[in-house]
Order: sequence, then C-alpha cells, then structure tokens
Amino acid sequence: MSKDYLGARQKKLISQIKRIGAEALLVTSETNVTYLTGFSGDSSYLLIGKDQTVLISDGRYTTQLEEECPGLDVHIRKPTESMIVALEQVLKKSHLTKVGLESHVVTCDLLDALTGITPAIQWNPVSNVVEELRMVKDASEIQEIREAVDQAQRGFEVFRALLTNEMTELQGAHELEHAMRRFGARQAAFDPIVAVGERSALPHAIPTEKLIGESPFLLVDWGAMTQKGYRSDLTRMIIRDRAPSKLKKVYNTVLQAQLAAIKAIKPGVLCKDVDQVARKVINKAGFGKQFTHSLGHGIGLDIHEGPRLGGNVETELKPGMIVTVEPGIYLPGWGGVRIEDDVLVTRSGHEVLTSVPKDYESALV
Amino acid sequence: MSKDYLGARQKKLISQIKRIGAEALLVTSETNVTYLTGFSGDSSYLLIGKDQTVLISDGRYTTQLEEECPGLDVHIRKPTESMIVALEQVLKKSHLTKVGLESHVVTCDLLDALTGITPAIQWNPVSNVVEELRMVKDASEIQEIREAVDQAQRGFEVFRALLTNEMTELQGAHELEHAMRRFGARQAAFDPIVAVGERSALPHAIPTEKLIGESPFLLVDWGAMTQKGYRSDLTRMIIRDRAPSKLKKVYNTVLQAQLAAIKAIKPGVLCKDVDQVARKVINKAGFGKQFTHSLGHGIGLDIHEGPRLGGNVETELKPGMIVTVEPGIYLPGWGGVRIEDDVLVTRSGHEVLTSVPKDYESALV
Repeated sequence: MSKDYLGARQKKLISQIKRIGAEALLVTSETNVTYLTGFSGDSSYLLIGKDQTVLISDGRYTTQLEEECPGLDVHIRKPTESMIVALEQVLKKSHLTKVGLESHVVTCDLLDALTGITPAIQWNPVSNVVEELRMVKDASEIQEIREAVDQAQRGFEVFRALLTNEMTELQGAHELEHAMRRFGARQAAFDPIVAVGERSALPHAIPTEKLIGESPFLLVDWGAMTQKGYRSDLTRMIIRDRAPSKLKKVYNTVLQAQLAAIKAIKPGVLCKDVDQVARKVINKAGFGKQFTHSLGHGIGLDIHEGPRLGGNVETELKPGMIVTVEPGIYLPGWGGVRIEDDVLVTRSGHEVLTSVPKDYESALV
Repeated sequence: MSKDYLGARQKKLISQIKRIGAEALLVTSETNVTYLTGFSGDSSYLLIGKDQTVLISDGRYTTQLEEECPGLDVHIRKPTESMIVALEQVLKKSHLTKVGLESHVVTCDLLDALTGITPAIQWNPVSNVVEELRMVKDASEIQEIREAVDQAQRGFEVFRALLTNEMTELQGAHELEHAMRRFGARQAAFDPIVAVGERSALPHAIPTEKLIGESPFLLVDWGAMTQKGYRSDLTRMIIRDRAPSKLKKVYNTVLQAQLAAIKAIKPGVLCKDVDQVARKVINKAGFGKQFTHSLGHGIGLDIHEGPRLGGNVETELKPGMIVTVEPGIYLPGWGGVRIEDDVLVTRSGHEVLTSVPKDYESALV
C-alpha cells in the first residue's frame, strides 16, 4: 500500500480528533489499526494525534513492522510487560490530557485499567470515528476490492466446473475456497454458504453433508479476501432444468428488485431509499414478508461495514462507497433465492464491480 | 453434543453466579454462548440464572436454534428491533435486580446502553467466569479435540506428500488447510504458518511467495477446527539432509526442552513451573534469550485459552486441561525451531494427544 494513502487517512482522522475536542485517539480495533497503518498483525494499539503517532506492539512483530510500516514510530513492549504497562509508559511520556477511546470496542475492563494508570488523562468515549472514514474507499482500496471480486469470480468458475451430484455442501464450500486461494486470495471473505434445496431458505445456512444432487437448485454466497484483507461478497443460484416453475417466478422477482435497486444507486440518495426500491418490487409480487433482512451493507476490511442499506438508515451515498445489493425471498421448508452484487458509488452514479451473469438462463446448468 | 454435558456446564456456571452474589449472568461472548448452549451462530446473548435461562437471537437463526438447542428458551427479536430493545423486554420481564456481565467482553457502549434501559438492575462486572470453567474440558470436549488432532495429523501427511521445491509458502499453507478439510475439519484452527528458512525465526510468520526450495528447512505450525469448533495446534520442522549442522543442535535443544516439560505435566503442578522446566534446558544450552515467548497455552473453542504455561502463571494444572507445549529458539536472519504438541492433563499425569514423530531423523525428508 502506498504511504500516501495511509498518510491521507491519518490526516483525515487527526482533523476528526480535533473536532471532537481531543488531542489524540487510542485506536484499539485491530481492523482500524490495519486501515491506518497497513500493519496486518494483531494485539497492537495505535495512539494517534497531531503531535505524535505511535504503534504499541510486541516482539513477535518487530521484523514484520519494519517491513509493513517503515517510518512508523513503534513501541515494542517486553515479553514480561502487559499491554497496560506499555500503554502507561507511552501515555506518561506523551503528556496528553484529553484522549479519545473507541467506546464501541474498548471493554469495561480495559477502560478501568486505562483510568487507573492515567489519572491525569480525561478519556473521551467516541464511537465509530475510524469506521466513518472507512465507509468511503480510496483508490487503493477500490483496487483491492476489484482484486477480491476477481479472485471470487474465478474461484466460482472452477467451483461450478467441479460440481457433481455426489458432492456435499461442505465439500463444495471447501473446493470453492481452495479455488479462490489458487487465484491469490488469502482466504474466503467469510465461510461460504452452499445451500441445497430447502436449505437455501436459511439466509445464514451453514454447509452440511447434504448432497448437491438432492435438489434441482442451490444457493451459493461467497467472497474472497485479498492478502491485504479486503473482501468481496456475491450470491448466485445454480439451477437445473428440472427445477420447479415457481423457482423461476421467485428468481425473476428477486432479480427485478435487485436491478431496480442498483439503478437507484448514486451520490446523494439515502440508504433507506435504495432498500425501499427493492422492497417495493418484492412487496408488489406478494413476497414482502419473505424478504427478511436489509438490502445490503458496505464491504472493505470487514465483511459487514457501513453503510448498511437498511430501512431506517439515513446515511447519504457518497462516491467511493462500496455496498452489496442482495435482496432475497425465503420460503421456509421450500427454498430461497438471493442475488448479490458489489456496487461502487461513482461521481456520476454507480459501477457494478461483479460480473457473474445473473439472468435466469445463466443460472441453469 | 449430548444435552447432559451442556446441562452440567450450565449448572456449574449457575453456582459460580451465586458465589459472586448475582442472580444471573448476561453472557455476551459468542464462544461462551456456544460453550453453554451448543449454538454455533453469532449475534446472540444468553441470560442465564437459577430461575431462568434464555437465549436472545434473531430471525436468521430460528430454524438453526431448533436444530442445535432443542428445549432451550429462545427470544427471537424482530428485524426492526435492536438487540438492546430485545434485552430490555427480556430483562424487564425477568424482575432481576443483580446481574453479572462479562466485563472483559462488554464494551463501554453496551454497558451504557444496559444501564440506560434497566435502571432497576445493578450490574456486576465479572471477568472470565465462563473461561475459568472452559479451562477444564469434559469428556465430549476431549473427544472433539482428539478429532481436531486427527484431522490435523492426516492433513499434514498429505501436505508433506504434496510438497515440492516450486511451491510457495502460501500454496503450501492452502494445500494443508484443504487437506485437513478433506478429513472433516471445518477449517484450519488458525492461519497455518509455513515458514521457509530464515522466515522460521518469526514466531508468527505469515506465509509469503517464498519458495519451499529456497532453504533446506521449513517450520510448519498448524491445526484443525472440527465442525463443532474445537481446535488442535501443532508445530513440526521439515528438514533436508543438506541442512546446516547448527540446525541439528538447535533442534535437539528444543526437543529436549519440550520432552522435559511434557514429563513435568501432572495435576497440582503450577503452570509457571512447567514453563521453567523447558526454559532451564534452553538457558543451559545458551539460547535463553532466543526463547522469546511462553511455553504454551490452553486450546479448546479458542486457539488461545487458559491456562497459559507462562513464567508468571500461578494456575495449578488439573485433570481435563489441554495445553500446547511449544518451546522455540529463534535466531533472527538465520531461522528458528519450534516443536509443539497438545497434552491432556490426566488424573495420574498426562497424555500426549498428538503423535507426529518428532525425533530429528523423522523431520528429515
């Protein structure tokens, strides 16, 4: 990752820190530390402010930090020192008096310890400051997500080619992940869902020993994670000719809802309004109660991040946001259909990053 | 998982809750919820007490909860209701006045929300109550970990057979994980470490594009996770005849340290004393400063859990604990050696659960 991107992220955060009336922010979320520094290890905190930015880590990561974060000020704690002892040293030396902490991440125990070691510091609880920044992706992040999409799509082609009636959902899921890794993915973006027949009615189905051949259709929800940790997220149906005709009707309802919602995506539109566009199509077809979740969510270093495309989300879409659009209709005991793509908000509208064909005929094998 | 084991765990916890002067405990750690109920999903909390035990979850999991937790009282929140709103309903109906919360898990934001919705409840912060119970495994857990060991060991055989000079560390790691899944693992217990040559000096090396053939030796640290979430954790070296003679000396020092530490494991011994046994052997050979981490850690639903075999850990070993024993010597820029097995504390001493041969000759390929 180019240093300019990291520098720009840190600079934006520092002006947010100023706005909330703090001198610095203690970043304790691993993902947020990665976002701000490029460091891919764990168990490390970042103290970031106008006057000083320092990463507190341990000896296992000395070499990795030199490779991943050249130029970053690093405090390596000794094996016998706890993180709290190291924080005490760094904070005392810093002479800070007002420091923000991530109150959606910091546990009660950590807050107790922090206030115990730093009586001179006033801790300001703030939620999701870094996550707000992460909602809008910079060019390097968009590039990473394009790569995650490519790994996922190439993996899916291999998976489709490998499918047999005798394969279980679990074997299918493993073949899919293995294939994505062959194309450079660090791992699957999340445990892939391979749900045969009525199991596709479970939005979060966990793969089982059920055989692919036990039903004429299956749902596959999958994505790849790049080496740097960025993720993609897609869903497609795989259908055989002998599928019930009801499936085609449900499928095309979901597809129409998805296409309409994607069309509505552009800067300035509210998340809840995009959700409504899809929901209206599904309501009109009489399946409103069977669309049991939000329309989509942001993707990035986490598989679920802001903004959520949900019925009560007032967030305005901005260029650089990347969201999933994934309406679904679930008929318990019968089966479900979901179609999901990843969509980048551009200055003039949107770009669909994913390109696995999705008309009903393309789903047929 | 048989219901008797779950019932016994809940019963033990309820007597702990009484001991800390609370009427119930709000369990918010996903892993702890799994441990107590067998539920494998996420985003769900368990309120557990003498008079009432109820799991608060959402509609995605209705069917899965019926399958995994028959008989458990479940409160399914509506899609439009937040977890906090659902908690408010459950807690108000419960008439509880003193409830424990997991202060090492609950965030500042969640505590704020809880105190806001339940002015009548006094919240008692308690740390690691469920984790204390989890340190001692019951028979069903020991069986799961034996399965995780078997999956890991069979996977390793395939991996060794597949290795070529032209394979990268990353490809090796992926082949290893894929092989373990073929033997029934849900996934790797953690991202496998495949570290060639000098990269083996990094205790937490992340696999790279480095080729297996670039050095006469590599370190492999891997484990499997069963479908129910239990884990194994092993480390072995793979060495070619043309390896430097220094490697053999370092290897045998680590091996002697490991064997001595394993021999010391029995009920009543303190964790820190087992660590000392290994450390003394390595100190005596002059590599004390190159053994930069604790000797080992508990394994179970998490890859790192209690008890830690560390220099300052006063915990007494008890029958049913399962710990890794993994001394290492790391020479930066040259390479490292670590040997790791999983050891069950038995009534009369210990049982080594892992059985991949580890004398120097067995490491040679």
